[in-house]
Amino acid sequence: MERIDGNQISAEIITELKQEVSALEGARPCVVFIRVGEDPASVSYVKKKDKVAREIGIDSRLNAVPESITQDELFALIDGFNEDPGVSGILIQSPLPSHLDELAAFRRVKPEKDVDGFHTVNLGMLCQEDEAGFVACTPAGIMELLQRSGVKLSGKHVVVLGRSLIVGKPVALLALQKKNWANATVTVCHSRTPDIAEVTRRADVLIAAIGKPGFVSGDMIKPGAVVVDVGINRIPDSSRKSGYRLTGDVDFDSVAEHASKITPVPGGVGPMTVAMLMKNTVKAFRLQQNTK
Amino acid sequence: MERIDGNQISAEIITELKQEVSALEGARPCVVFIRVGEDPASVSYVKKKDKVAREIGIDSRLNAVPESITQDELFALIDGFNEDPGVSGILIQSPLPSHLDELAAFRRVKPEKDVDGFHTVNLGMLCQEDEAGFVACTPAGIMELLQRSGVKLSGKHVVVLGRSLIVGKPVALLALQKKNWANATVTVCHSRTPDIAEVTRRADVLIAAIGKPGFVSGDMIKPGAVVVDVGINRIPDSSRKSGYRLTGDVDFDSVAEHASKITPVPGGVGPMTVAMLMKNTVKAFRLQQNTK
Repeated sequence: MERIDGNQISAEIITELKQEVSALEGARPCVVFIRVGEDPASVSYVKKKDKVAREIGIDSRLNAVPESITQDELFALIDGFNEDPGVSGILIQSPLPSHLDELAAFRRVKPEKDVDGFHTVNLGMLCQEDEAGFVACTPAGIMELLQRSGVKLSGKHVVVLGRSLIVGKPVALLALQKKNWANATVTVCHSRTPDIAEVTRRADVLIAAIGKPGFVSGDMIKPGAVVVDVGINRIPDSSRKSGYRLTGDVDFDSVAEHASKITPVPGGVGPMTVAMLMKNTVKAFRLQQNTK
Repeated sequence: MERIDGNQISAEIITELKQEVSALEGARPCVVFIRVGEDPASVSYVKKKDKVAREIGIDSRLNAVPESITQDELFALIDGFNEDPGVSGILIQSPLPSHLDELAAFRRVKPEKDVDGFHTVNLGMLCQEDEAGFVACTPAGIMELLQRSGVKLSGKHVVVLGRSLIVGKPVALLALQKKNWANATVTVCHSRTPDIAEVTRRADVLIAAIGKPGFVSGDMIKPGAVVVDVGINRIPDSSRKSGYRLTGDVDFDSVAEHASKITPVPGGVGPMTVAMLMKNTVKAFRLQQNTK
C-alpha cells in the first residue's frame, strides 16, 4: 500500500508557482480573503492560505470583518474588490454566519475573480468542460493529486461518496470529462443510497466526501482500489493542545489493508486545496492580463 | 411490460398549460424560434414546436435566417430579442452551421429567457439545485415522464448511458438532487466505459442517450428495470415517404422482454421535450412578470 503524500505533491505545485510568479515582470497576482467573524477553523484556514500565497509571491490581503456585517455591506465589500484592477482573485471563507446568504455572496464575486470556483457561471463552465472557467479547489486538487500519483482514470470506475456542491458533484463532473486524464465511468452515491458498501466495493477509485468520520471501512473496498479521503472532521481530543484532532471519512488502518494507494488525513487532499487556490489565482491574473 | 406513452403524458402537460395560459389576464407568453438554414430536421422540429405553442396560446415568432448569417449578425438578432420585453423565451434551434459558435450563441441569450436551458448560468443553477433556473427540455422531460408514470427514483440506481451536455450530464444531476422525486444513486457510463453491459445490468432505471441506433439490447437489462430511450436516430428507409424512419438507442423488442416499463421511439421522450419547452416558456413569462 502506498500513501499518497499530499504535502509533498502540493509543495511541488507551490514550487512551480513560485518559479512562475518570480518570472513575471511588472504586476503580480493578488488574492483577497474575506473572513467574516472569528470561527477558529476559518481563522486557521485563512492564515494557512495567506502564508502560502506570500511564500509564492502572490500579494495577499486579509479582510477580517465582524460577524455583524450585513448582506449589503458584504456585497459592497465584494463589489469594491470586483472593480479593483489590482485584485486577481477573491475568496470568501466559508461558512458564513447564518444571517448571510452564502450562495448570494459567492454569486456576487465576478466569475473571472472567483478563484474558489463556487460561482454559478464557473459551475456551468465545468459542465461545459470549458477550461477558461475556475474549478473549485478541492475537486481540482483531487484530480491533480491522482494525476501526479500516476493514477489513470480513463476506463476506470470512479465512485464518489457524497453529492455536495463543493466536492461530490464537481469531482464527478471532472472525472467524467472527455479528457485523457478523465474519461472515467462515474457513480455518485450518498446518504440515501440503500447499500453504500455494495457500491463502494465496485470502485477502482473511491472518493470519500460524506463528512462522517471513519465511515469507510476496509470491507467496503475492492482489493487494489485507490482511496481518496476528502473528509476533514474535527474530533474532540483533550490530549491535543488544540483540543481536537482531524479525522477523515476513511478508517485508515482497515482500508489500508485492501487499498493500493490511499490519501491520509491530514496531509492528503487538504494541502492540495490550498495549492489549487494559488494555481487559480495565478490563472485569474494571467487571464485578466490578457484581456487588458 | 408497460409502454410509457410520451404522447399522452405530454398531451396532459399541454392541456394543463393551455388552462394556465387561458387564465392569464393581459400579456401572454411569447417564444421566439431562431432557425439558421434549412436543415430538414430543424425545419420539422421548429414547425412542431411552433404548432404546440400556438395550441397552448403562447405567441410564437419564427425567425428563419439564411445559413450565410455571420456570428455578429446572429448576436445582434439575439440581442434584439433579449431586450424586447414582449419576448419571454428564445430558442436557437441546434445544430447551427459549422461556421457559427453554438456555445457562444447559447451564452448570448439572457439566462432568464433561456428556455432551452443551455446557458452556462442555467447549467450552474442546475448544479446548485436552484429551481429558479431553466433545466434543458429533454432531461426535464425525462424526469417528468418518470414521475407521471409512477416511477420513484429515491434509493434507486439510475444508470445514464451517454455523457452529453444536452442530456447525459443534466439528467444525471437531476436524478441526484436532494429532492423527494430524485435522491437516486447515479452512474454515468459512455463510449469509454470498458464493459457497458456490466454497468447497465445494474440499473433499476436505465436512461439511454448514446446516439447509437439499437445499441441497448435485452441482455443489457436487469429484469424489471425501467428503460428510457432518448435516442432519436434517423435511419434511411426507402419504404417511407420521408426516406427515413426514427429509431431509438434501445432495441425495443429484445429489451421489452426484460423491462417493466419502457419508452418507445417515436412517442416517448420526444414529445416531452416539446412540452417542457412550453413549460419553460410559461415559467419565464411568470418570472419576468414578477420582476416588472
